[in-house]
Amino acid sequence: MTPEQSPIQEVFAPLSASFPGAAALRDDAALYATADGNELVLTMDSLVAGVHFLPQDLPDLIARKALRVNLSDLAAKGATPTAYLLSIALSASEHGDWIRAFAQGLALDQRQFGCVLIGGDTVSTPGPLSITITAIGEVPRGEILRRGGARAGDLLYVSGTIGDAALGLRVLRKGDGGIPGADSLRQRYWLPEPRVELAPVLRRHASAAMDVSDGLIGDLTLMCEVSRLTARIDAARVPLSGPARAMVEQSPDLLETCLTGGDDYEILCTVPEDKAKGFEEDCRATGIAISRIGRMEPGEGAPLCLDADGHAMTFMRTSYSHLG
Amino acid sequence: MTPEQSPIQEVFAPLSASFPGAAALRDDAALYATADGNELVLTMDSLVAGVHFLPQDLPDLIARKALRVNLSDLAAKGATPTAYLLSIALSASEHGDWIRAFAQGLALDQRQFGCVLIGGDTVSTPGPLSITITAIGEVPRGEILRRGGARAGDLLYVSGTIGDAALGLRVLRKGDGGIPGADSLRQRYWLPEPRVELAPVLRRHASAAMDVSDGLIGDLTLMCEVSRLTARIDAARVPLSGPARAMVEQSPDLLETCLTGGDDYEILCTVPEDKAKGFEEDCRATGIAISRIGRMEPGEGAPLCLDADGHAMTFMRTSYSHLG
Repeated sequence: MTPEQSPIQEVFAPLSASFPGAAALRDDAALYATADGNELVLTMDSLVAGVHFLPQDLPDLIARKALRVNLSDLAAKGATPTAYLLSIALSASEHGDWIRAFAQGLALDQRQFGCVLIGGDTVSTPGPLSITITAIGEVPRGEILRRGGARAGDLLYVSGTIGDAALGLRVLRKGDGGIPGADSLRQRYWLPEPRVELAPVLRRHASAAMDVSDGLIGDLTLMCEVSRLTARIDAARVPLSGPARAMVEQSPDLLETCLTGGDDYEILCTVPEDKAKGFEEDCRATGIAISRIGRMEPGEGAPLCLDADGHAMTFMRTSYSHLG
Repeated sequence: MTPEQSPIQEVFAPLSASFPGAAALRDDAALYATADGNELVLTMDSLVAGVHFLPQDLPDLIARKALRVNLSDLAAKGATPTAYLLSIALSASEHGDWIRAFAQGLALDQRQFGCVLIGGDTVSTPGPLSITITAIGEVPRGEILRRGGARAGDLLYVSGTIGDAALGLRVLRKGDGGIPGADSLRQRYWLPEPRVELAPVLRRHASAAMDVSDGLIGDLTLMCEVSRLTARIDAARVPLSGPARAMVEQSPDLLETCLTGGDDYEILCTVPEDKAKGFEEDCRATGIAISRIGRMEPGEGAPLCLDADGHAMTFMRTSYSHLG
């Protein structure tokens, strides 16, 4: 956040007010002290207008999505968010009101998730608006969760519901076809729900975790690769919201969109069978729904996804390539 | 660095090899443990093609510049670089060879400056190539240097030479006019020299420091504002390289370009008078030239810059607005 751009510095500086190490964004860098006994978890995600969000999306929702996709990564690692750095490349279209609304979105989510803006950069671009956030979280030493920790036999779980955001994007583009509750799908596309409260539960019980950002099947494939295992899941067990279920009933092809579409930002994790009961109880205490969808299995290769009749499903593509 | 983009992951993963917490870039996030007794310094800078570098610049030089502008910020805070996260938004023009050359540039500078790629993101953009780096450094607890620590009477120093990069950009655009050594000016535009070795010297002696990235006069103005002081400098004491001096002799107006142009990435710092001797000696030991250019003074407002005849200079603008 270069002070030379002082109108922008004035808008963003209040977001750093509770963090002395941010020096009110009037320095080249932030100072950060990790709490004793903790390690840092760092993640960085970029969002580009027309690729990761629609150019006409509201600025506060763009801001919150940019922050939340990073918080989702931290949650999947078992980390509690503390701070973030923001770099924003402004196109000719974003002016004072837009920037203020963007900052208000950040302010809202900072309060909700307990993290603070501590630094960053503002540049102009002849291209589309682009936002990059580096989010910082903390975990007790040695307790980070990885994608690669799964063992054969571990149970596979996902949080929340899958496919809403991908269907929401479809609704935004093609209309809602009269589906009741379609508005909630759009909402899920605009505003993911990072599962920050699951972080300590994952640390206690899970053997591996990641967030589902690029499609459940594709992301599960990655988890299998890194864990050097394969997996078997039942499509009928993958949790769908009411509106998603209604759309899939109307157009059964959309089940593939749910299973391979992106932007879910739910947690995919593996839990050893003997910890399953405790895991499910602790999840219940957070109020976040969790569904067992299958199991990790020995072997290699893409996970097997069985349909309601027990037949292996095949997919046109296993993960999401955003708006492209 | 999303593993879904596996060709890119393969190119970048070797850069993270020495850092287990990076998980070979095959996870959502990096794990970072700060050394006992240290605090972290974090900085984030974005570079956009056509704004911060020329689209035709070589990929290895673009990579190194993107890293070095961040390392320069760390050095100015007295921090030693350890790691960085990289987000790269690729346009339709960057392909395999380009990306490999970019990664080779990073590899070279990682070795030179002792830092490691630990995470990041790769996205595609319909706009220009854009690069954002979050660099991490460490300082002993309580020893970070700030812009705002200067006291009235402190001496003002800059490292290296000032104006080379701004003149180098001019040479790239308008030709070198037969100036001997003009090539070195272009080189300085492409490849800043972050003063990483000055970090411990600054910690020992300086009261305030920042890097000169947007023009000496503009950046000094910021330091004055944050320190609630003003300053007086002698233009004749501002160190110019041989080729810069030759260009200014040919076109005296270019002195203003040197004093207000950007991309110097030299250190501007203040040192209490009683520490000046030790500071100069310690700088000499690093082999990095340092010049005393003036003094911090009580009062407020823009610094006074005197020309060789002792007259106050005025400037069209005090800082750089990049290629715009």
